[in-house]
Amino acid sequence: MIATAQVISQEDLVKHWQGHRTLTRRVIELFPEKDFFEFSIAGMRTFAQLTSELIAIGAPGLKGIVNREVEPFQEEAEKFTTKSQFLEQWDKDTETINNYWEQLSMEDFSDTFNLFGQYEFPIIQNIFYFIDNEVHHRGQGYVYLRALGIEPPFFWER
Amino acid sequence: MIATAQVISQEDLVKHWQGHRTLTRRVIELFPEKDFFEFSIAGMRTFAQLTSELIAIGAPGLKGIVNREVEPFQEEAEKFTTKSQFLEQWDKDTETINNYWEQLSMEDFSDTFNLFGQYEFPIIQNIFYFIDNEVHHRGQGYVYLRALGIEPPFFWER
Repeated sequence: MIATAQVISQEDLVKHWQGHRTLTRRVIELFPEKDFFEFSIAGMRTFAQLTSELIAIGAPGLKGIVNREVEPFQEEAEKFTTKSQFLEQWDKDTETINNYWEQLSMEDFSDTFNLFGQYEFPIIQNIFYFIDNEVHHRGQGYVYLRALGIEPPFFWER
Repeated sequence: MIATAQVISQEDLVKHWQGHRTLTRRVIELFPEKDFFEFSIAGMRTFAQLTSELIAIGAPGLKGIVNREVEPFQEEAEKFTTKSQFLEQWDKDTETINNYWEQLSMEDFSDTFNLFGQYEFPIIQNIFYFIDNEVHHRGQGYVYLRALGIEPPFFWER
């Protein structure tokens, strides 16, 4: 079998995603318990609310893709009241993502899927959305940490 | 020739990158002239300074990769004093990126390159860094805009 050159391999893309998830986990950990649920700037969502969104997107989104089951967007983590509940869910999702990822084939990435019944795009674009949206909100989390006088982790710490 | 399945095609990856660059351009445009250069939260860099970093990374980084020429990181846009200078450079870089992108081959992405003489990684990782770092800093820009009472663009506006 001849190895075909790829822009990125399937294995490296999930490593990239999980690397970002590891960094976001560090950001969650750095928030003081109270500020995680209460601090915000200019009426924006708290980092708990942003994390709740991220949890509603990553693993459930990938599960929907693999099963080709269109499920509505639902924030289960909204009801969490402690950081440790968030972190526990985060770690469960790390496994869930790895398990579903193994069920993806190279042919899937260019297939179209209607994510949460709202975003009808090629699956690779759905996955880039998962990653980019997390980087975007985590960038906001960095500002919150700075405003709280806390040094955020290095961006390349994965 | 048999088409081989790809996680993402080379063409789609540059479209993805340029889509993000279009959104960042919108964010630059939305800043009032004065605030672009002066506003910040918690002693962080202004959006002008962050944009200057992005300009120093994207096009120069890709040029270095294509020519396999290791050049030190250098912020030329530091000296810009108007938003329109930034936007003009941004648009020039859009062309520069497209032109250099065409000179990349599929085999290049897995090659290792020492970006700015500091980051020795496979080229695909360098390119993901260009994109992710921009999304990260733009997320900070969204907080600045909100704090200034300005509605940022939708995240999916590309």
